[in-house]
Amino acid sequence: MPSFNVAILLYPNADIVDFSGPLEIFSCSAYGGREKVFNTTTFSFHNPITVGAGNLTVVPQASLNEIESKLEEYDILVVPGGAPEDIKEMLAKEEGKAIVRLIQRFVALEPRKEQGHRIALSVCTGALVLAAANVLKGRTVTTHHIAYELIEEMADEAAGGESGTKCVKKRWVDAGKTEAGVRIVNAGGVTSGIDASLFVVELVAGKEGAQFAADLVEFERRGQDDAWVAK
Amino acid sequence: MPSFNVAILLYPNADIVDFSGPLEIFSCSAYGGREKVFNTTTFSFHNPITVGAGNLTVVPQASLNEIESKLEEYDILVVPGGAPEDIKEMLAKEEGKAIVRLIQRFVALEPRKEQGHRIALSVCTGALVLAAANVLKGRTVTTHHIAYELIEEMADEAAGGESGTKCVKKRWVDAGKTEAGVRIVNAGGVTSGIDASLFVVELVAGKEGAQFAADLVEFERRGQDDAWVAK
Repeated sequence: MPSFNVAILLYPNADIVDFSGPLEIFSCSAYGGREKVFNTTTFSFHNPITVGAGNLTVVPQASLNEIESKLEEYDILVVPGGAPEDIKEMLAKEEGKAIVRLIQRFVALEPRKEQGHRIALSVCTGALVLAAANVLKGRTVTTHHIAYELIEEMADEAAGGESGTKCVKKRWVDAGKTEAGVRIVNAGGVTSGIDASLFVVELVAGKEGAQFAADLVEFERRGQDDAWVAK
Repeated sequence: MPSFNVAILLYPNADIVDFSGPLEIFSCSAYGGREKVFNTTTFSFHNPITVGAGNLTVVPQASLNEIESKLEEYDILVVPGGAPEDIKEMLAKEEGKAIVRLIQRFVALEPRKEQGHRIALSVCTGALVLAAANVLKGRTVTTHHIAYELIEEMADEAAGGESGTKCVKKRWVDAGKTEAGVRIVNAGGVTSGIDASLFVVELVAGKEGAQFAADLVEFERRGQDDAWVAK
């Protein structure tokens, strides 16, 4: 099995479990006794970066520029959420514009041949950042329950009119692929990111691999029976 | 309601969600619209400290000495787990001995009058660190499923003979109070720490407070119906 490079975005006051849940799942060192499947890299516009409403300071492993400069090498991009007012504030700044550009470039890159998958995974209100990048146009999506209306508004704003984005209450959603073949996956709020990450593991490493990771972290998977999956 | 100070231990290669799950729950800024109930402080022997098998580097908010010097002010101590071999290596060093001393002092401190609760919460194999501190003698406990036998061995070793420690397979366990009145709570593996943290929130801030936090992070609580609670 090829290995997959996972880039995990951090920005001011991103939620803690929004990024650490996926980081935990993707950094499980082995899946079913096989060699390491995922290599994770945390990255940020800032260094260090304080997240979780001031409660956790992280030294990211790469800068936003470093990830941008070799974006083609990253197969999975994780975009965590945070309080909507913090996200809006971030989006209005140079940082937000750089993040939006990076996301737009990422979803326009065909999957690497050997890996065969490229996936943008938003967790919680991280989907608002994808909305601002106009990536959710015409898609059925999900986000944290506080942002069900806001995400449609932000998608419309980014589209400069009616975006056709429809938000549904789900544990996670497979919102379909971009023209380049990049799959968009949205988790619901916070801990949903663990389920959505396990769905991504299942996609690229198989059901057994996902169950191995779930068992290792003593997690009962949710959302598999009622997830919305784009045709 | 009084506010509670939560000290969260970090050590080399501690598991990510073992500490970040409790940090997420205790740093929810408000419970049911009330003022902030918990103040969290991450601390470590190292600065910065790399956890999660090399995948996350954190700048802790306090040193081990700083927490030790005002230990009386901390109402809740969170001890995350990690790979048993990493924990054993850590315990053999100066760092491990300092951590064991800190835990032993903590469980001998009566709860603060206003708060009325003092709690040591282990997550996952963090219970092995409590075992090494001889805090689990005579108690029914739990830990990650890979360490059910090891924890009894380590408790016996710390007790210098038969410890009477009995490990059960549970989402979390309330292992009872020390002579000073400090409650010992053990979570099972990794994500169980979210449930055990919500149990601690319920103890000190009520059932509604715990449900508020669970709803905010879109988490379905587990373990309440079959938890082992010391008489």
